[in-house]
Amino acid sequence: MKAVLAEIITIGDEILFGQIVDTNSAWMGTELTKIGIRVKQITSVSDSPDHIVEALDSAKTRADIILITGGLGPTKDDLTKHVLAEYFHTTLKLHEPSLADVTAIFEKRGRALTALNRQQAFLPESCMPVRNVLGTAPGMWFEQEGKVFVSMPGVPFEMKRMMTDIVLPQLKAYFKTPEIIHKVVQTVGIPESILADKLEDWENSLPSHLKLAYLPHLGGVRLRLTGTGSNVSQLEQELQAEVDKLQDLIPDYIFAYGEVKLEEAVGQLLKSQGLTLATAESCTGGYLAHRITSVAGSSAYFQGSVIAYHNEVKTSELNVRTETLQQHGAVSEATVREMAENVRQKFKTDIGVATSGIAGPGGGSPDKPVGTIWIAYADKNGTRTKLLHYNKDRLLNIEYTALAVLNLIRQSLTGLVEE
Amino acid sequence: MKAVLAEIITIGDEILFGQIVDTNSAWMGTELTKIGIRVKQITSVSDSPDHIVEALDSAKTRADIILITGGLGPTKDDLTKHVLAEYFHTTLKLHEPSLADVTAIFEKRGRALTALNRQQAFLPESCMPVRNVLGTAPGMWFEQEGKVFVSMPGVPFEMKRMMTDIVLPQLKAYFKTPEIIHKVVQTVGIPESILADKLEDWENSLPSHLKLAYLPHLGGVRLRLTGTGSNVSQLEQELQAEVDKLQDLIPDYIFAYGEVKLEEAVGQLLKSQGLTLATAESCTGGYLAHRITSVAGSSAYFQGSVIAYHNEVKTSELNVRTETLQQHGAVSEATVREMAENVRQKFKTDIGVATSGIAGPGGGSPDKPVGTIWIAYADKNGTRTKLLHYNKDRLLNIEYTALAVLNLIRQSLTGLVEE
Repeated sequence: MKAVLAEIITIGDEILFGQIVDTNSAWMGTELTKIGIRVKQITSVSDSPDHIVEALDSAKTRADIILITGGLGPTKDDLTKHVLAEYFHTTLKLHEPSLADVTAIFEKRGRALTALNRQQAFLPESCMPVRNVLGTAPGMWFEQEGKVFVSMPGVPFEMKRMMTDIVLPQLKAYFKTPEIIHKVVQTVGIPESILADKLEDWENSLPSHLKLAYLPHLGGVRLRLTGTGSNVSQLEQELQAEVDKLQDLIPDYIFAYGEVKLEEAVGQLLKSQGLTLATAESCTGGYLAHRITSVAGSSAYFQGSVIAYHNEVKTSELNVRTETLQQHGAVSEATVREMAENVRQKFKTDIGVATSGIAGPGGGSPDKPVGTIWIAYADKNGTRTKLLHYNKDRLLNIEYTALAVLNLIRQSLTGLVEE
Repeated sequence: MKAVLAEIITIGDEILFGQIVDTNSAWMGTELTKIGIRVKQITSVSDSPDHIVEALDSAKTRADIILITGGLGPTKDDLTKHVLAEYFHTTLKLHEPSLADVTAIFEKRGRALTALNRQQAFLPESCMPVRNVLGTAPGMWFEQEGKVFVSMPGVPFEMKRMMTDIVLPQLKAYFKTPEIIHKVVQTVGIPESILADKLEDWENSLPSHLKLAYLPHLGGVRLRLTGTGSNVSQLEQELQAEVDKLQDLIPDYIFAYGEVKLEEAVGQLLKSQGLTLATAESCTGGYLAHRITSVAGSSAYFQGSVIAYHNEVKTSELNVRTETLQQHGAVSEATVREMAENVRQKFKTDIGVATSGIAGPGGGSPDKPVGTIWIAYADKNGTRTKLLHYNKDRLLNIEYTALAVLNLIRQSLTGLVEE
């Protein structure tokens, strides 16, 4: 079967001049790939009618689908709309449902509809309007010689909503793309290369309609299994069987299925086990607590934290013994152990965790270079500590340390033994 | 004078499939704009020789400069290099200085040079090699009929270093672009539209070779003044005179000149005044402390923090009175005032700041809807509080609250009276 090809055209000087990073295209690329449509080219052009027409002419020689974002809205004089009307030899006409949508948005904001915004409800007569429930610029769907052109606003949340609700399902139907199903498996604590080694035999044994993608990101590798076929429930079963095999192959490294963050998975574990948590942070400086409290509902298990940036605070607020600090230093197993145990007692929580290290760029020594970091986990059964060595910049050292602590909590709560 | 036009071509399926967001092009767009080169188009193409050639042919009809990233390195079989050699009718030849660079990188990593990596030192004979001090793939500079083609690796830090050290200065010289100088003025606490109102008359009075750009971002608006001409020191003087006028027009909102973050500016103020700081955080959950400690050297003024996520912790660790919590609730002026004053006493710092609010999505009430947030600043002269109302999602509410506290510290330390 021949692949259905798409091209994305983004319109706007602000992308070319670097004032905006084009995140829309990556999102669209991901979503189109998921339904079996292949993106052939992404083109960013200026706010100029000739340039837009040139890009459209060029795109339709290569692709079946041309998705256009930007160049809509009153500040851009709805440039794209006028160009498309001329390109498809049609004229603008008032589209009553769009006018009703725009009017409703202005009423909600408590403002009167301006003449400029009323203009936004005038659409090319030959297009099928694509409803925008989150903004004032409707989308437009054109068909020409079996090819589809869709114009959408550049505002990310408006474009995403239109794609999800209308454009992607319609493209799927129009081009009769095969059924495609994905399952995402989230791993942590294992580098991509070692993971690939462990999974090589299994991956090679996958039937050709099931594909594996490694999607590494800061702090973990997402595995995406994709099945292509005609029978959804059969694909579901096949994928689930493979995911079960994965679970047997790398049980210690999988922390969730689907789009779940590590702090969310840890939050779920704490909640389901009815446990509470406190943190004592030195080098992470509050970032660990921030990751934990970025999860809605985290107040159910997170009690609070002491950020002991100065040694004085480690002593006065966390009761770390002066002898410990003098003998072993702030960045030491002994200190981080006392920090975790004492914050647990102080906050009367089930679990206490702690961090102490040299985030950099200053503060390193031959003995303890930048990136030397101790972490600890304490609960009623005892305390476990871990020494980390990172060689990144300050912010990455902080980030990786927070992820290592979250993983240590996860390992402890699921009965995994530390390596 | 006719503008010099550039096009950027990025090569790689991983961008088209959405596995990578193309941040390189935005960075290049910003840097090219700064030296007076205008980006006309950005094109992302697949890992296919025909497609790359098509993009090159198309780009040279529009632009004077074609910058190519990606498609280099052993995993891509140096695709771009082979395509360019054929495109410019030349052959590959060992380039000894590049071989020395690659060998040195492998030695540093303690590994033997592979045959694959040795191949990377073979370059098209007609190109001028562009040295890559951070990686194994050298860049290539070609000239054809007055147009310049530069190929660079897609790894962001390698590309940026090559652009900064070699490509940008050479482009400036080759195309004899005019002298362009920028001054950046950082503002906080004033929305773009109100700022534009205040600056309208001044902006209209600017001579035509001085331009103002508003660059809004989360938490502030950067103003960039750009001067174009032939005499650098005269431009410098003219720009400085305009910046001085700006300082008179909006003294309360400017927190820094140049690329400085708000937390860095606050850190500088604390350091220069020899003051220390502690935070007491409820709704920000450690994020405020994280922003403060993300600055290298912040241990000079930051003592630590109590994150009192639970009311119990507010009482036990921050000595907030039970009556205060009962009468006014945790999200109240009285509570946040006690938090700031008590953390200051407890940590023996010059300044204590505090946050308490409803970050959402849960926890709101008709009385105190989501986004109701109190902040406080306490020093030896007394305590000031501020009520914030945000209507964003959880993470944005946390982010904006941290910025509001940083701004409150800045205002207090510079003697600005709160509105």
